[in-house]
Amino acid sequence: MSKGIILFGHGARNPEYIAPFRRIRALVEERQPGVPVEIGFLELTQPPLEESIAALAARGVTHVKVVPIFFAPGRHVLKDLPQLLGNAMDRFPGIEFEVAACVGEVEAVIEAMAAHAVAPT
Amino acid sequence: MSKGIILFGHGARNPEYIAPFRRIRALVEERQPGVPVEIGFLELTQPPLEESIAALAARGVTHVKVVPIFFAPGRHVLKDLPQLLGNAMDRFPGIEFEVAACVGEVEAVIEAMAAHAVAPT
Repeated sequence: MSKGIILFGHGARNPEYIAPFRRIRALVEERQPGVPVEIGFLELTQPPLEESIAALAARGVTHVKVVPIFFAPGRHVLKDLPQLLGNAMDRFPGIEFEVAACVGEVEAVIEAMAAHAVAPT
Repeated sequence: MSKGIILFGHGARNPEYIAPFRRIRALVEERQPGVPVEIGFLELTQPPLEESIAALAARGVTHVKVVPIFFAPGRHVLKDLPQLLGNAMDRFPGIEFEVAACVGEVEAVIEAMAAHAVAPT
């Protein structure tokens, strides 16, 4: 079983939008060397999620964990993402997909944001 | 000098979108009891930022720190937010405004998201 991770974001017009995704990826790669990490988006920002999945497939990954970088699991995570993954399951029948909780649901992320809100500026 | 904090988000159609903001607010209130914390949005989700500012003004707050709950400082933080704050400065000339870094730029938040990405599911 060969694992891969995709950091999944909404996307935006601003090219700087990708910066935090790159930083998360760098830390993930440090902590799990050898586990490929891709970044993929719903719209606007490149690459689209479909390409990120194809990139992992090309590397022989058989288990893809999608981590939604969203504050809350709204329409994009509950409806758009499952549709995209459904298409991917047809395209890559040898790959298992799982979806982690979105980052806004993670207590440690909430705590880090609260700590930032109270920190002196 | 009476301080207040606004957690500023984009907003979404899904009413659940507000949930992480409430959780951040609860933690901030624990850590800084007595400092009023409001939540305000650019669109869709209630209340709009302007109302949150007015709520703090009504409580006698003279220094408002706006904390953008965004992954990256794109158009909404760099253009829309300053416009809204400019209007607020005209409406409430006795209030000083400051804007914190957006949460996606905070190392501890990035680390918490990376830790979540590698955690077993």
